[in-house]
Amino acid sequence: MNPPDVLVAAAARERLAALATPAGALGRLGELAVWVSATLGECPPPLLEDVRLVVFAGDHGVAAHGVSAYPAAITPAMVRTFLTGRGGVSALARAHGVSVRVLDIAVDDDLGGVPEEVTAHKVRRGSGAIHLEDALTAEETAQALRVGSEAASAEIAAGAQLLISGDMGIGNTTPSAALVAAGLGLPATEVVGRGTGVDDAGLRRKIEVLDTALARAGARTTDPVDTLTALGSADLAATTGYLLAAAEAGVPVLLDGLISVACALTAERIAPGSAAWYAAGHRSTEPAQSLALDKLGLEPLLDLDLRLGEGSGAVAAVPLVRSAVALLRDVALLSEIMPT
Amino acid sequence: MNPPDVLVAAAARERLAALATPAGALGRLGELAVWVSATLGECPPPLLEDVRLVVFAGDHGVAAHGVSAYPAAITPAMVRTFLTGRGGVSALARAHGVSVRVLDIAVDDDLGGVPEEVTAHKVRRGSGAIHLEDALTAEETAQALRVGSEAASAEIAAGAQLLISGDMGIGNTTPSAALVAAGLGLPATEVVGRGTGVDDAGLRRKIEVLDTALARAGARTTDPVDTLTALGSADLAATTGYLLAAAEAGVPVLLDGLISVACALTAERIAPGSAAWYAAGHRSTEPAQSLALDKLGLEPLLDLDLRLGEGSGAVAAVPLVRSAVALLRDVALLSEIMPT
Repeated sequence: MNPPDVLVAAAARERLAALATPAGALGRLGELAVWVSATLGECPPPLLEDVRLVVFAGDHGVAAHGVSAYPAAITPAMVRTFLTGRGGVSALARAHGVSVRVLDIAVDDDLGGVPEEVTAHKVRRGSGAIHLEDALTAEETAQALRVGSEAASAEIAAGAQLLISGDMGIGNTTPSAALVAAGLGLPATEVVGRGTGVDDAGLRRKIEVLDTALARAGARTTDPVDTLTALGSADLAATTGYLLAAAEAGVPVLLDGLISVACALTAERIAPGSAAWYAAGHRSTEPAQSLALDKLGLEPLLDLDLRLGEGSGAVAAVPLVRSAVALLRDVALLSEIMPT
Repeated sequence: MNPPDVLVAAAARERLAALATPAGALGRLGELAVWVSATLGECPPPLLEDVRLVVFAGDHGVAAHGVSAYPAAITPAMVRTFLTGRGGVSALARAHGVSVRVLDIAVDDDLGGVPEEVTAHKVRRGSGAIHLEDALTAEETAQALRVGSEAASAEIAAGAQLLISGDMGIGNTTPSAALVAAGLGLPATEVVGRGTGVDDAGLRRKIEVLDTALARAGARTTDPVDTLTALGSADLAATTGYLLAAAEAGVPVLLDGLISVACALTAERIAPGSAAWYAAGHRSTEPAQSLALDKLGLEPLLDLDLRLGEGSGAVAAVPLVRSAVALLRDVALLSEIMPT
């Protein structure tokens, strides 16, 4: 994977140091401004007018085994809600000028009446219950990776300057935690969290499911694509393909919560260097997300106890990226205001 | 001081719980949405289209005594920079649709050629070096409080839905730390930080200056207005008057860093209950800010290591307030998407 432009990064660091602000006073926004410049290949960076979110929706066999506080019927209902612009992330995206596309990758529902463009890339109805069977066949994994990659390419071709991946799928924190456990070689107990809010019994079941799944996958977890097949899901594979394609095309990505970061970790395993194209929007309450971010060397911009998913934490952080851009573009240089 | 509307707060909490999101999934943004609703007296809250920042500029006698990494000549230069729209906070404010007004309260410069509306309310040229003399006379304190109050009233009359106070003045973290030390009964060592970046020797001088100032003020620190006279400055008194007038008028305020929060603590001492009208935008690296926020029961939305002042941390947090508003206004109710 090609890295972001080092010469532009150096120019951005130099400009940052020359601004009419105390040294280091812009803190994280200064670092972010350098990253944005380098990934967009331009210093000062252009205004971020075209930011795009793709929500990858899919169901998970584990949802029928007591790992979630909510029933799987929520997934298609939320897909329909996004299409009417009334999901949580829809509201945030509208407030911050981010476009939203929803793709049904593996929702366990026919989604009758939903536009063809949403369902056209469906890989299957629900992914396998990972403690009992593989999530996907190898062919389905390849297909899902391709669907995600094509989704990124389409958004980039249409003008995306910054991409975000979102998720919708009851039970999706379990396979995501599995990707992190596999990627980092950690046991279930260290990566499992409460998702949208399971109780203690649910948390124990989630750990059991994950333990069983990791044991079942065995040595296949040493390969990141095999890990998606054994322990992931079609929507997670599509998200991984989307993140890989963004890095490949040299387009920056703002990551969201556990789902997005588990896929970023998987992308980094598949194509080392991908993570240089990613920044982290929001710290999840899920332990697996922080573990994966540490591995990727990323620190989230926000920590607001959100556990909504959908891409919401990343969309909420978009104005901070715009703040960083504005500072590097518009602040006077010290040499301009204090002529010697 | 009247509290924000409890009935509207209750309605906002009820609406929040009924949204098509997992219970508690909106985290801090959910709490913020309740606060915005209550302070604006409307649920769901209106769009925040009119957000206004007033920057109170002033110099400080202590700046000539080695407590700052920068010379006092920066203060008038930055006032001029704000007027050309090229200060740090100017860039952020433009990016996020926040209007900016700069008032020269006590800049130690004639600011020749600067518009009359900026300098018309000047209280004096520089405030006293607080380890050697009072910052102000009692009359000047009263005048500065009134100037700040009138500034808030003018912005509110012009349509402000949310107010922010900003600061500009080399040396201003020293009198601000003094207000916090006095307000909380803490010694200099616990409240002093590095401001815009003093070295170890500068930090020791800052502690000495503050120790001497606190000893000089003596029992006058038990009265918040006397504290402003002895240990504050004209710009800090004006900021305090601004915050008091906002709370009095029932208009919410997003606080910035140490300067803004030190004045909020002083406002709360003068008129208990004022702090219910304030939310905290950004955690400062200055220890006194966190101490004062704890006392006020406020937790910042952002923690980005900014130490720019000017109101920048609060302006950077404005989009989060808009996010909170958008979520409570626009997200579907669970009853709408899952009819029973």
